[in-house]
Amino acid sequence: MSGTLTIAGLGPGHEALVTPEVSAALAAATDIVGYAPYVARVPARAGLARHPSDNRMESERAAEALRLAAEGRHVVVVSSGDPGVFAMASAVFEALEDQPQWLALSIRVLPGVTAMLAAAARAGAPLGHDFCAINLSDNLKPWPVIERRLRLAAEADLSIAIYNPRSASRPEGFARALEILNEAGCAERVAIFARAVSSPEEHIETVTVRQARPEMADMRTLVIIGNSATRRVGRWVYAPRRAR
Amino acid sequence: MSGTLTIAGLGPGHEALVTPEVSAALAAATDIVGYAPYVARVPARAGLARHPSDNRMESERAAEALRLAAEGRHVVVVSSGDPGVFAMASAVFEALEDQPQWLALSIRVLPGVTAMLAAAARAGAPLGHDFCAINLSDNLKPWPVIERRLRLAAEADLSIAIYNPRSASRPEGFARALEILNEAGCAERVAIFARAVSSPEEHIETVTVRQARPEMADMRTLVIIGNSATRRVGRWVYAPRRAR
Repeated sequence: MSGTLTIAGLGPGHEALVTPEVSAALAAATDIVGYAPYVARVPARAGLARHPSDNRMESERAAEALRLAAEGRHVVVVSSGDPGVFAMASAVFEALEDQPQWLALSIRVLPGVTAMLAAAARAGAPLGHDFCAINLSDNLKPWPVIERRLRLAAEADLSIAIYNPRSASRPEGFARALEILNEAGCAERVAIFARAVSSPEEHIETVTVRQARPEMADMRTLVIIGNSATRRVGRWVYAPRRAR
Repeated sequence: MSGTLTIAGLGPGHEALVTPEVSAALAAATDIVGYAPYVARVPARAGLARHPSDNRMESERAAEALRLAAEGRHVVVVSSGDPGVFAMASAVFEALEDQPQWLALSIRVLPGVTAMLAAAARAGAPLGHDFCAINLSDNLKPWPVIERRLRLAAEADLSIAIYNPRSASRPEGFARALEILNEAGCAERVAIFARAVSSPEEHIETVTVRQARPEMADMRTLVIIGNSATRRVGRWVYAPRRAR
């Protein structure tokens, strides 16, 4: 099989955050596969077929990409941020496990700047000490698992990056997450709401967990909860390097 | 004050993983400040002063960078990976809190591809589900804090990226971490040892926690421990999107 499959991260949105490695892969591609808004970030050109698909079509999209690569195409699957963090890479490997004949394909994963790193950079350095990343979408995991992880993360005094805090189809999860954090003794911790980082609509707001309201987050928001030592200096928020 | 301070991440090592935003900041700098091996990654040119320093000099380096910026210079503090993840950004904000007159400076943090994302991409998608990042260096935190976080992370069934697993000055911590993970029921979990990712010396080795040996890690290694659902397909390792 002479086709190739590249799973690439486009970063949070701004072109200056796309790595040269990813730009080179896009320039060499014959086919771009991905969620429509991400495919739209790759300009049309002669010889390039773009295959946009809807949200929640990850498995079908992954299988389509592998099938195209098996036909000899040079396929790039695009994700925003990093493809390995709550994005397309896992879906591709799931599809590969279903269809192991495609293991012979040349496959590469190209990392990118994931949302929490871009958000943290805008706020200062809230992930400068031990932290975790938790996806609040319960499409693919039972809510009690999310709740348990939030409680243990609070107990471990990790900073917490919350991906997909809230969508129109599940507005209640994030409200419950804030309740859990308040109950777990995190009421005075910093809560950073970073929306649409690196886009013209970028908006960063920093409050405490006690002050946080569910409606402060939407689909384009990344939330970072500080640890017990997180500090504010001027407009900046950072986790000190030293732990107690 | 007309000087500027930029805290920039150079990514894991390869130039193709440096974002255009960071390349532009380096091209506009008058001064580069950082740990000597990272400063050495920025080529010398007329008009550029390079200020390399030794490891563990983070506070002095941060103060030096702020002082130079206050003198009107355009200073870039370089870190490998992302500057906000166990790197220089927190040290700069600590120095800023000590010397708040520097809050008037124009400061930016530019994100980068942190080691765990580059390592995960080479291995497949081991961080494709909820995960945490724990720094095993106990220079700045008591060992019992590290031990407690490892136990809680295992209990939460998070994948675990271990930064700075082992150095010549503290060979015993990582051995103890492996013992803890074995005791915590993680013996059959995947353990990925990713050394010098994106450099010519890159080496990736995947075993189980039970099979892992302390000497498999050194200063240039990033270790990723899978969660209970992590799977192998061919040479790839990935965390399925679905949790139980």
